[in-house]
Amino acid sequence: MIKAGLIGGTGYTGVELLRILAAHPEVSVELVTSRGQAGKRVEDHFPSLRGHYELEFQSPENVKFDRCDVVFAATPNGVAMNYAPGLLAHGIKFIDLSADFRIKDIELWEKWYGMGHSCPELLAKAVYGLPEMNRESVRTASLIANPGCYPTATTLGLLPLLKSGVIAHDPIIVDAKSGVTGAGRVASTGNLYSEVADSFKAYGVAGHRHQPEIRQSLCQISGTDDVGLTFVPHLTPMLRGIHSTIYVQLTDSSADLQALFESQYGDEPFVDVMPVGSHPDTRSVRASNMCRIAVHKLAESNTAVILAVEDNLVKGAAGQAVQNMNLMFGLPETLGLTGVPVLP
Amino acid sequence: MIKAGLIGGTGYTGVELLRILAAHPEVSVELVTSRGQAGKRVEDHFPSLRGHYELEFQSPENVKFDRCDVVFAATPNGVAMNYAPGLLAHGIKFIDLSADFRIKDIELWEKWYGMGHSCPELLAKAVYGLPEMNRESVRTASLIANPGCYPTATTLGLLPLLKSGVIAHDPIIVDAKSGVTGAGRVASTGNLYSEVADSFKAYGVAGHRHQPEIRQSLCQISGTDDVGLTFVPHLTPMLRGIHSTIYVQLTDSSADLQALFESQYGDEPFVDVMPVGSHPDTRSVRASNMCRIAVHKLAESNTAVILAVEDNLVKGAAGQAVQNMNLMFGLPETLGLTGVPVLP
Amino acid sequence: MIKAGLIGGTGYTGVELLRILAAHPEVSVELVTSRGQAGKRVEDHFPSLRGHYELEFQSPENVKFDRCDVVFAATPNGVAMNYAPGLLAHGIKFIDLSADFRIKDIELWEKWYGMGHSCPELLAKAVYGLPEMNRESVRTASLIANPGCYPTATTLGLLPLLKSGVIAHDPIIVDAKSGVTGAGRVASTGNLYSEVADSFKAYGVAGHRHQPEIRQSLCQISGTDDVGLTFVPHLTPMLRGIHSTIYVQLTDSSADLQALFESQYGDEPFVDVMPVGSHPDTRSVRASNMCRIAVHKLAESNTAVILAVEDNLVKGAAGQAVQNMNLMFGLPETLGLTGVPVLP
Amino acid sequence: MIKAGLIGGTGYTGVELLRILAAHPEVSVELVTSRGQAGKRVEDHFPSLRGHYELEFQSPENVKFDRCDVVFAATPNGVAMNYAPGLLAHGIKFIDLSADFRIKDIELWEKWYGMGHSCPELLAKAVYGLPEMNRESVRTASLIANPGCYPTATTLGLLPLLKSGVIAHDPIIVDAKSGVTGAGRVASTGNLYSEVADSFKAYGVAGHRHQPEIRQSLCQISGTDDVGLTFVPHLTPMLRGIHSTIYVQLTDSSADLQALFESQYGDEPFVDVMPVGSHPDTRSVRASNMCRIAVHKLAESNTAVILAVEDNLVKGAAGQAVQNMNLMFGLPETLGLTGVPVLP
Repeated sequence: MIKAGLIGGTGYTGVELLRILAAHPEVSVELVTSRGQAGKRVEDHFPSLRGHYELEFQSPENVKFDRCDVVFAATPNGVAMNYAPGLLAHGIKFIDLSADFRIKDIELWEKWYGMGHSCPELLAKAVYGLPEMNRESVRTASLIANPGCYPTATTLGLLPLLKSGVIAHDPIIVDAKSGVTGAGRVASTGNLYSEVADSFKAYGVAGHRHQPEIRQSLCQISGTDDVGLTFVPHLTPMLRGIHSTIYVQLTDSSADLQALFESQYGDEPFVDVMPVGSHPDTRSVRASNMCRIAVHKLAESNTAVILAVEDNLVKGAAGQAVQNMNLMFGLPETLGLTGVPVLP
Repeated sequence: MIKAGLIGGTGYTGVELLRILAAHPEVSVELVTSRGQAGKRVEDHFPSLRGHYELEFQSPENVKFDRCDVVFAATPNGVAMNYAPGLLAHGIKFIDLSADFRIKDIELWEKWYGMGHSCPELLAKAVYGLPEMNRESVRTASLIANPGCYPTATTLGLLPLLKSGVIAHDPIIVDAKSGVTGAGRVASTGNLYSEVADSFKAYGVAGHRHQPEIRQSLCQISGTDDVGLTFVPHLTPMLRGIHSTIYVQLTDSSADLQALFESQYGDEPFVDVMPVGSHPDTRSVRASNMCRIAVHKLAESNTAVILAVEDNLVKGAAGQAVQNMNLMFGLPETLGLTGVPVLP
Repeated sequence: MIKAGLIGGTGYTGVELLRILAAHPEVSVELVTSRGQAGKRVEDHFPSLRGHYELEFQSPENVKFDRCDVVFAATPNGVAMNYAPGLLAHGIKFIDLSADFRIKDIELWEKWYGMGHSCPELLAKAVYGLPEMNRESVRTASLIANPGCYPTATTLGLLPLLKSGVIAHDPIIVDAKSGVTGAGRVASTGNLYSEVADSFKAYGVAGHRHQPEIRQSLCQISGTDDVGLTFVPHLTPMLRGIHSTIYVQLTDSSADLQALFESQYGDEPFVDVMPVGSHPDTRSVRASNMCRIAVHKLAESNTAVILAVEDNLVKGAAGQAVQNMNLMFGLPETLGLTGVPVLP
Repeated sequence: MIKAGLIGGTGYTGVELLRILAAHPEVSVELVTSRGQAGKRVEDHFPSLRGHYELEFQSPENVKFDRCDVVFAATPNGVAMNYAPGLLAHGIKFIDLSADFRIKDIELWEKWYGMGHSCPELLAKAVYGLPEMNRESVRTASLIANPGCYPTATTLGLLPLLKSGVIAHDPIIVDAKSGVTGAGRVASTGNLYSEVADSFKAYGVAGHRHQPEIRQSLCQISGTDDVGLTFVPHLTPMLRGIHSTIYVQLTDSSADLQALFESQYGDEPFVDVMPVGSHPDTRSVRASNMCRIAVHKLAESNTAVILAVEDNLVKGAAGQAVQNMNLMFGLPETLGLTGVPVLP
């Protein structure tokens, strides 16, 4: 059994990780930290976990991580980087679900996240944990930067096209929609039920932190630095789910896009290329680690439209973290992640 | 492996049964029938099942059930009774998720369901599949009447009180609220999103089919025929979930209600008695087979209030059917049913 | 034109009052206070009001209310009582939408609201502003205790029955459901979209502040002190709306309940007695000042069930406040309140 | 008083028109037709209208429209064209809220709507009722093609840019999201609450009828035929609201986009240009006739993003129809349309 620790267990990513790990046959969760809930039983904080855990939240100061083989961080940005050096020094693998190690360019990271980075020397060591892009590096990594929710669906939706060179690098337009759990479990007026129910809006049009993260991957895939990416996120009145609608300009109008996607993802356990003409809905992946993608080549136009859906808390966060863990420990990649989506 | 068949696989109870059985280690689904979708692949009808089934819906006329060990019916009322005699004659166990065998009094059944019953002789043979009430009978049953969604939560909420004789039998008031999936997957104006979203209403105040079903169980538990039950169902703008709020008048004001519930359900795997003072929410059981119950004894009053929540598609339908199947086949009762609730 | 002021204009009751008053032909809103938003334009805080107001929020310390004929308070409990003496001394009518003046028994008030009352001498002067119960007193009042949202629908649902003496005073059971705006516009984890969407729960079973408020009115109506009232509120995933389901025991089984309601409310502009057998939904009163009521006498039972719906922000708060204002100023009671419910 | 008739009064556009007209000081609704509900009282079908109408639905065969000054059609496509010639021959003004007269190119219309047009000779006479584009023509029109919901917000979002020639005509990408009422009040499995709640999807990527309608307007505005328009609609789990996110490529990077919009719409009563940097949400226009628009010029990019929101049932349908009626009858354009948006 792999002994796991969780730093920051009171948010939505945390409870989802606990849900998934409770059913994982090769993992035992040994400790969960929380400053605010220290001393409280985990199942009292999350009644959905009653009967699945016998743990109390521990204040992070008092925790010895030595008995852990792997530690996950489901913390606000800027926290995980303080734990990384110590954990790695003790030979503990570290999977960071926050953004601390996602962007390689330290200046870019510090600009977007508005703080100094406490261990920039680890950025080179960190592997961006999108297995469909970096699987072999993940296997041998000790530090994983688990991708953001928007970047996961969006990058998977663009990878086959950029890799095969059939689209223009500019403009690439990503119109993305997220459920409200993507905003986290923080008391704020803006995310009250009474503010976001029965309404829809864009946000962060002038700039969103996931834009540079996506662009970094797109540049890596294309081997260039000329990707012109417009990224506009929207808030949707639903709990879970990301729907990324991607608009690209084809440079090779004869390309068989469906074949490109099927070829790229044919062996991927967690990417499902839908039949031609499909419109995947987010509920079709609810509570599962699957990303479903449909590609549409429009008639009388150079524009192609890609639709990619995922559950932001699973493939967009906790599920992908477990997928990375499986790879890092030599387990079957799908272990504990084969749950059928919950529909309706 | 138990070979299972499913009659009527295109509704919400059907897809939920397929979701649960896909993860059950001892069951193989051999066939699924549907008149309307015959010839269509199951996963094309329910994209959430992609990769989990290699089946086409079959027209029921063409199906040979012989190779099945057990057959589930997730059909509209009045259909399953036509299959029961034949299946039982072939030694196939039959679990009916519809209402055809729930009410023992044939006249009462025919009045409420507005049709003649085609095999009243099987009613005595049918076991009402609420394991917490009839576990031993379920083990040896060949025909299960799987309880309704409202009756499951409501009966579990009243059982300890009636059994111990601490409440008046009249009035017992049940104010129940259901998510919209309880209305089934039938095209109707009344269940359109635009009709039920952001709104709340009662229905069936003058009479609802689940009232006689609940009352039958309450009379059986109390060993009397004097139960005065008022049952008012309400439609709530949510997908899954039943919340039954039960009001009873105590006859023994010194009774320790919490102890009664804990004693009754201490060993039950799927009934969770919450700590004193709790208010379980329906999401705490979402997609799981758990029923959570809280009991409140009011100050300065003879009234006690019981709150019982379940997922209407799981403990209120498909999950309970699998729980019954496990019992009938001598499997561990919880096999395939230990999934953690999906929250948020 | 009546000159109106609003103390506390940044919550849901406040913005609803501003919405209604913007369309009122005889009212001009002269000032709106807010500590947190002082200096900000009202329409920047609530873009829905763009073009309807040319006002900035003012810090309450700096406000002179002298130019107002009437002041509304849409503040947290415990604030309005500090303004009341001063306003009344200046001859300004005061309509308090909070709970400060609703309960006549000062000890009871202080127990439930957990604070001392700063002007108990005004309690006798305050008129409980439910026009259908106290219309004539409202006309001449200078201080209005605007009723709570639950109490409005519930009291209207019980008034004809208690007044005519056809029901037992104990037990009276009220199972009430509210939309989430009833919880106010305060940043709290518990009211986040991700906490309350697609879920349902009871709260405050052990005791809720609206229980003594309702009971006070029921005792007044019945002219007794023996009302045994059980009140259980529930949180429903919708924005607006209260649905009160009321269970009473008939003492006169021959009473024509429908006639009682129609007789009581036949001339009321804002109480709509639905046809026999109706199930009003909350959306049928959305954004309107109407309360719709249906009464069901159950077969083979002494129990009667009353269904009462209202929009908690209108008839349950801001609309009723304007109704009271109309009465206090001798205007037609319905002025500015005849908007058709927004459905769907 | 203008005497109005309504053909097809049982859908969402119909009930919204009845809501708006009930409050219009210069209109009296004389008749409402419905095949399915003939003989039923309007207020029994829509309880929200109780007390506002004394009308029964009439079967269209039996109706004499002579006493009407104006007739609205809120019917499925292909119905209104059968009434148009007769109504116009009698000098009755006709406002068609369906698509029968929206597209001038008869072949294009017949291709997209899959039927022959019964009175193509009237297409030239029909005025496309977007007042912000065609106000003067509307004033003198006898036949109005009321715009579609998506086309209204989208065209308003592009008009200032195309008119001033600061953007490329190709590619113009419109990613639009609609609430579920846009799908109409027709019993269908696909629009059940249980199918669309808590989920999000695109539809019609390969082609949607509003694409040629939008493109026709864009070509008219630009005076060209080279508009390359990609239009992808999405279904959002909310009742009302359209959010159109529009991506254009600037040809004049020095253009002051905010000034262009403010100049174009400064005098428009129903187009609200938001301050720089705004993200309008759909609830900010709920139940009102307003379209709010924000324009974002992105840094380090030639792409501009326009956000336009409206209530699909008001500015996108019934409200705009009344706006057109006001113009046609020489009334103030805003009469009966000044209601404040309902938020929350």
